[in-house]
Amino acid sequence: MAEIPAEILEAIAFDADGLVCAIAQQHDTGEVLMQAWMNREAVARTLASREVWYWSRSRKKLWRKGETSGQTQSLVDLRLDCDGDAILLLVDQKGVACHTGRRSCFYRAARDNRLTEITGVTTDPEALYGDS
Amino acid sequence: MAEIPAEILEAIAFDADGLVCAIAQQHDTGEVLMQAWMNREAVARTLASREVWYWSRSRKKLWRKGETSGQTQSLVDLRLDCDGDAILLLVDQKGVACHTGRRSCFYRAARDNRLTEITGVTTDPEALYGDS
Repeated sequence: MAEIPAEILEAIAFDADGLVCAIAQQHDTGEVLMQAWMNREAVARTLASREVWYWSRSRKKLWRKGETSGQTQSLVDLRLDCDGDAILLLVDQKGVACHTGRRSCFYRAARDNRLTEITGVTTDPEALYGDS
Repeated sequence: MAEIPAEILEAIAFDADGLVCAIAQQHDTGEVLMQAWMNREAVARTLASREVWYWSRSRKKLWRKGETSGQTQSLVDLRLDCDGDAILLLVDQKGVACHTGRRSCFYRAARDNRLTEITGVTTDPEALYGDS
């Protein structure tokens, strides 16, 4: 089991479920790619391996981003906010971050009282998660 | 009470506490400024007024960003992620987003097994929250 360096661990305010909010941002373009959750082990593995790990609340398990799809996130910098309950991951995203095949999960905008898709699918999800 | 347009409301997956994760990003520079929480009324007021409102979990009340400090956030675009449980707010941040007087709340980076402050205070917090 990987460990988080003590000074960093002490500064992270994990919630009652042992989780901390994590935001992934492409390090060079500034695009916000996704939001997910990390537990202590996910933070530890991310810092140790420089590949981003999350905790899946629905599947109740650790997952390495891209372990199925190949769309991995290499860690460039891990930042913590002022009250320690949110982490900003500066990453180098391989391919697309979203399971829908879009670069960013934030592809719907509230405009004119409706949701408008502002970015299209660039990679067929079947190619990411299919049986091939 | 402000209302969220129906198509947008239906797409937001508020959690068991009625909250959705919100990330504020400076619209032109791409800087991630802060992470906070919104409830239904905060989203409604933000869309209606184009000024960003949040729900404070600690104070259990709605707050308009900058209502005390003057460091307001004007909404440029509100985006929703693929599963509806995170909102990305593209904003125009007046002054500093962080209560410590820094532009962004994410001013600590995990480097060399320690936390390093990567941005300094640009506005004295006393000037933001003092009695003057």
